[in-house]
Amino acid sequence: MPGAVPGVPAPELLARARLLVAPRLSPSLVRELERITGRSAERSGEGGTTDGPLLCVGAVLPEALRTERLLWFHSVNAGTDALLGAGPWPAGALLTRTVGRMGERIAQYVVGWVLAECQAVPEYAAQHARAEWRRLPTELVAGQTALVYGTGRIGGAVAGLLRSCGVRTVGVGRTGRAGAPPPGFDRVIGAAEDAEQEAAELAGARWVVGALPLTRATEGFFGAGRFAAVRGATFVNVGRGATVDPVALEGALRGGRVRRAVLDVLAEEPAAPDDPVWRLPRTVITSHSAGITADEDVAQDFAACWEAVAVGRRRPELAVDTGRGY
Amino acid sequence: MPGAVPGVPAPELLARARLLVAPRLSPSLVRELERITGRSAERSGEGGTTDGPLLCVGAVLPEALRTERLLWFHSVNAGTDALLGAGPWPAGALLTRTVGRMGERIAQYVVGWVLAECQAVPEYAAQHARAEWRRLPTELVAGQTALVYGTGRIGGAVAGLLRSCGVRTVGVGRTGRAGAPPPGFDRVIGAAEDAEQEAAELAGARWVVGALPLTRATEGFFGAGRFAAVRGATFVNVGRGATVDPVALEGALRGGRVRRAVLDVLAEEPAAPDDPVWRLPRTVITSHSAGITADEDVAQDFAACWEAVAVGRRRPELAVDTGRGY
Repeated sequence: MPGAVPGVPAPELLARARLLVAPRLSPSLVRELERITGRSAERSGEGGTTDGPLLCVGAVLPEALRTERLLWFHSVNAGTDALLGAGPWPAGALLTRTVGRMGERIAQYVVGWVLAECQAVPEYAAQHARAEWRRLPTELVAGQTALVYGTGRIGGAVAGLLRSCGVRTVGVGRTGRAGAPPPGFDRVIGAAEDAEQEAAELAGARWVVGALPLTRATEGFFGAGRFAAVRGATFVNVGRGATVDPVALEGALRGGRVRRAVLDVLAEEPAAPDDPVWRLPRTVITSHSAGITADEDVAQDFAACWEAVAVGRRRPELAVDTGRGY
Repeated sequence: MPGAVPGVPAPELLARARLLVAPRLSPSLVRELERITGRSAERSGEGGTTDGPLLCVGAVLPEALRTERLLWFHSVNAGTDALLGAGPWPAGALLTRTVGRMGERIAQYVVGWVLAECQAVPEYAAQHARAEWRRLPTELVAGQTALVYGTGRIGGAVAGLLRSCGVRTVGVGRTGRAGAPPPGFDRVIGAAEDAEQEAAELAGARWVVGALPLTRATEGFFGAGRFAAVRGATFVNVGRGATVDPVALEGALRGGRVRRAVLDVLAEEPAAPDDPVWRLPRTVITSHSAGITADEDVAQDFAACWEAVAVGRRRPELAVDTGRGY
């Protein structure tokens, strides 16, 4: 019998693991998870004892399951910061996540808002309501520069679609990369070591896109220092709200360094009607709608993880490094 | 001495042609035209006699120049229907046009409005103004079908950019084409011979884009027959306004067959404030802003035509078939 593979639940434990699913999952998704795993599902969070090894699918880890009996948790979301931030992760438990078509969806969100600004979509809609025929200034996005913070699957998808529109794309990662930039990027620089080059690129950029996960290293990442280098770019955040220092963003908007802001994510969601974030100038907030996951995304990504773990005894591509946080 | 090349002004005439430019052209563009042709420009329409062969650059052909002495007219616009419709074209005169980055501009206009609808940009802007956090339905454009009417440079550019977003693109040309479809298209069908296939594609399409020139064959082209086949597509017109039967479009919008309309062009421009077109439901009119031409576009395209004619004695790629109308 082969030895244990690090990061992969042992087959004999997985074989007898109970499948617990979050109460919110749709019946059709639950049936699909039962089909994939070959066992009946139980709804988690309904009390009762939970003996034996556990395989859970959901958005949050119920306290009762924060135990060494947890073999594997599959998140129905791509971002796992809330999940990991709620308490210590059970030692040895595998965490996998759903990315689905999220890269594609978020890329279309970003390019949709970018081109809508270039084409003056809200302004034309308002002008139309006044029955007014007047040519408004529009912009050709081709030839402009976008800085995309985050060079993983999501940042790469965003950059790739911007590039299809003729935009020069500069990725900012934790570190620079030797050799050719990854697909979608014309150039990649490191936020840690290339501060001067980053400032120069920020000054020349028409678009600054945040696609960062929330970790200890990225909290307040978009702060006064970075915004000071911006010269008229529009800021689009599709990562996590807490990667932005809200006071610094407000100052940059009021001072005109940031031309407009499109915020899909906020540090506190949902924003209450009296939240001052609604009064930021030239800003639109879109209620965390850029990267929705559909049931078929969850089923498909979980199936791929199951295939890797249960059949191939490999660590799935969608496994999260629970120490690093993404 | 070689014989005359059809459609190309004879070198000995071109060598002594006077350069007449429209009064509206900017001084920097005129200087550029003087540099390319190696002669001084005169402003047309300032009266006076106009002896000898003529080379004109402008938007409209002044009546005084509608003469056999006109060797060559270069249009600063892409559409030449108004120019050709104003009177009989002088026999033998070459007509060339400016396309510039128009394909790219119009493609970004179309994709901008398509993605803005998918991302509910106007609705989110309105919701933001009410300080309301609510996730609105959005659409992933990838996997949807767009019918693009017009398979030339502009239709091809529109299709190519839609395809970068994962859209299946079907071109509709005058006739079908044998062999592989041109770049940007997944399929091309002929409006004349493939009526059943066109109706089937219209029924399945999420987007119908008009990018047709105005000719006798395309007047009222988008009429009751075509709209009857539509099942919920959004109609975007970036071609010419008179290619649309306005009564048929209104009926299709009111009946719900056409989901929304985005009209950059109208049969009568500008639309007066009391024009009923402003009251079409779920429609936005954008004041003929999709395919603007910049001075550098005119200079660049004229230079390419000059190179073909004066140096290569070839018919330029941007020459218009004055009989066919584009």
